[in-house]
Amino acid sequence: MQHTKQNSLTAFFEPRSVAIIGASATPGKAGYEAIRNVQANGYAGKIYPVNPKGGEILGLPVTSSISALPAGVDLAVIILPAEATPKALRECTARGIRHAALMAGGFAEVDEAGAKLQEELMTVIRETGVRVLGPNISGHTSTPHGYTSAFFPLGKIRRGNVSVIAQTGNFATHTMRSITTGEHFGVCRVIGLGNKVDIDETEALEYLADDPETKAIVIYLESFKRPKRFLEVAREVTRRKPIVMLKSGSTEAGKQAAVAHTAAMASEDRLVDGLLRQAGIVRIWEYSHLVLALKALSMLPLPKGNRVSFLAPSGAMLVTYTDFCARLGLEVPAVGPETVARLQEISPPYIRMRNPVDIWASANVRGVEFAYREGMEAVLKDANIDAVVPVMMLTRQIGQPSFEFILDLAKKYPGKPVLVSFSGDKDCAEECKAYLEPRGVPTFLEIEQAFEALSILVRCRKAMDRPR
Amino acid sequence: MQHTKQNSLTAFFEPRSVAIIGASATPGKAGYEAIRNVQANGYAGKIYPVNPKGGEILGLPVTSSISALPAGVDLAVIILPAEATPKALRECTARGIRHAALMAGGFAEVDEAGAKLQEELMTVIRETGVRVLGPNISGHTSTPHGYTSAFFPLGKIRRGNVSVIAQTGNFATHTMRSITTGEHFGVCRVIGLGNKVDIDETEALEYLADDPETKAIVIYLESFKRPKRFLEVAREVTRRKPIVMLKSGSTEAGKQAAVAHTAAMASEDRLVDGLLRQAGIVRIWEYSHLVLALKALSMLPLPKGNRVSFLAPSGAMLVTYTDFCARLGLEVPAVGPETVARLQEISPPYIRMRNPVDIWASANVRGVEFAYREGMEAVLKDANIDAVVPVMMLTRQIGQPSFEFILDLAKKYPGKPVLVSFSGDKDCAEECKAYLEPRGVPTFLEIEQAFEALSILVRCRKAMDRPR
Repeated sequence: MQHTKQNSLTAFFEPRSVAIIGASATPGKAGYEAIRNVQANGYAGKIYPVNPKGGEILGLPVTSSISALPAGVDLAVIILPAEATPKALRECTARGIRHAALMAGGFAEVDEAGAKLQEELMTVIRETGVRVLGPNISGHTSTPHGYTSAFFPLGKIRRGNVSVIAQTGNFATHTMRSITTGEHFGVCRVIGLGNKVDIDETEALEYLADDPETKAIVIYLESFKRPKRFLEVAREVTRRKPIVMLKSGSTEAGKQAAVAHTAAMASEDRLVDGLLRQAGIVRIWEYSHLVLALKALSMLPLPKGNRVSFLAPSGAMLVTYTDFCARLGLEVPAVGPETVARLQEISPPYIRMRNPVDIWASANVRGVEFAYREGMEAVLKDANIDAVVPVMMLTRQIGQPSFEFILDLAKKYPGKPVLVSFSGDKDCAEECKAYLEPRGVPTFLEIEQAFEALSILVRCRKAMDRPR
Repeated sequence: MQHTKQNSLTAFFEPRSVAIIGASATPGKAGYEAIRNVQANGYAGKIYPVNPKGGEILGLPVTSSISALPAGVDLAVIILPAEATPKALRECTARGIRHAALMAGGFAEVDEAGAKLQEELMTVIRETGVRVLGPNISGHTSTPHGYTSAFFPLGKIRRGNVSVIAQTGNFATHTMRSITTGEHFGVCRVIGLGNKVDIDETEALEYLADDPETKAIVIYLESFKRPKRFLEVAREVTRRKPIVMLKSGSTEAGKQAAVAHTAAMASEDRLVDGLLRQAGIVRIWEYSHLVLALKALSMLPLPKGNRVSFLAPSGAMLVTYTDFCARLGLEVPAVGPETVARLQEISPPYIRMRNPVDIWASANVRGVEFAYREGMEAVLKDANIDAVVPVMMLTRQIGQPSFEFILDLAKKYPGKPVLVSFSGDKDCAEECKAYLEPRGVPTFLEIEQAFEALSILVRCRKAMDRPR
């Protein structure tokens, strides 16, 4: 019997109850950590660990079989080897469960035997209409609902307003840890796609398009399942919500690696590039820029345009980063005569002040706080400037200023992104980051990252405002 | 009277005695911090602070005028405003001092009046033959001699084997602090060029070419004073010592900023690019890559070729960084059948092991230490591999392994650079860095940086081995 597909993936992101098939009492095992994660995230729904051994795991009574589960469980998370997964999926459907996330790897991405197992999954899906995420994922996350199916030890995941679609498990594992331990922003939904036997990037995008919690979408993709439909959906979404994508396998060498990963053949890259652009999708090229895009979109407004002012304690930085901005499509325009006059006022006369701003002498003579505060306000006020990057000169031997003025300026000019970076002592930079970021102002330990992040926002704005 | 120029800049880098003209008793002032810096670096020569007020500064008796200095002082460091600098320089030469570093800005880079002052300096140089570094520099450094003229509070600078020529003050100020506080490598000589009224990049390069302490040279340049001669010298040096250069002002926008900085007109960039390549100079494009190049050249051997193996805990990373390597000119070749067999041995069967190495499953099932140790050794052994980048999956919740095995492997395969990076908890990565780097193995907190650093080394090797 062919079932009609549901329109919504809501049950994956707001499950009222979850069965964890393959629950384990052993710390470190996936079936244990998955339960610990969901508890750590404050999930308010019901959790049913399933394991033939029964007993209790992390304070929860264990159900000994899928058929012994109560009726009406919303979602099954199946953490079993590939061989055991199709059977478990079928049993879940028999118990009335209509949504499942399948964790195991070892399907079509590995060998013939795996491909057969994947066929079996597709048969169950076809016959029962069960909706499936995966297989070969490491979980999905929904912070507004305090829920995650991730089995990698994660701890609490901060709530945010940007969602992720990822044809890879990283975003539910070590990349998520690098965010939770190294950054101060959160995420909204994280959707692992894995081998996409059922739910694909298009359906995930459709869900996020209508999700009121999601204001922007970051995507990692190795292949398109339904490219035409995906681009159709994206074309409309990008007018309302920015979409940033890392589409990998852009080189011949990368394609080879992609085939090994999620059984995906990479498409012709140049073609892809043009199609993404037409759909208003902002393409990025480096893995670390996924986190950069998440951070920028989470913490900053989209600037009105591409005109940036930056302040740095060094002529060499002014020259080098002006070059860098030009390569990124960021303009470093002249500022108005009033701005120049104000900048000159705060500096010793032996520096010619303009944009970009050589703040070195002013910081040395009048102090770091005065120089950056007055310099930043001068350029933020300027109608020719859409965003400001202060490269803070911080060193212990000069003494750490108070950073409150940066918060004040960011609040006073809410339409203009302020991206803070650093030159000088590493621990001073870390201190500034620890102060500013929980209060909403993003910092970038590598200066190039601040400009890269800004250029992503500028491209998102341009895509949103593109002519119809 | 026209003096013959000395062939060597030795007195700048091995001064037996130094006069600091414009010494100050006030902490925070340049004339105070310069003395504190030189003391902090264990300088064994004589230091003569000069200030009309006399008295004592940091335990040193102050000489009240230049003419009252003892005979035979090797080097004068003049920390006076631009207006006072030409007169002081002439007085130094009258007292027999034949080398001077001039700190003040406010010369030709600022205005007409400054240009006139610069003319005066050149007159003194022409008439007396005094050798001058600057003006408009923030100091020069020579760690083998425990010496620095830097006036920015720096503290102790680690000794290293790579030298820097910089047409900017950063390398004696906040960029140096970012190295001393954030990194574990040192530097050898740091030569600030400033406005280059006398000593230019060519002479600096000639000095470093013959300097037994310098094994590689990193250069930041905004303009060439004697391009033909510079390239001639470089062409020979690059066969013995790698030269890496950031030549800024590569875009029209950057050129504008360069004019404001050190009164230098940027040359035609494409032409420059070809000439640098012919001379065997490895060009870089980002400011942060200056530090990256220093780090790589300081801590690693040049690889034999461009064939890299990397291990990462994620298929997405394998694909993305294979793309990234391709863009950087790094090859990620297939490894031999024995290597594949060994890799498959250490992994659960549901991952197809090859190069790049998906270490995720092995790390999860057999532990991080076992997986990375055995995986790294397998690829390091392989004759098809010139360098290895392990992207360590580290998270507190799994537990930190011992990192000694990485030191052991780096020692066992000394011709193959090992560049360590991370995915996971930030503090775990920092811990690993703090363990490995003082013991000689470099780490890179951003994964892209490891590959960027490797590509710089590969290009240095290629330049060194280029056909004549």
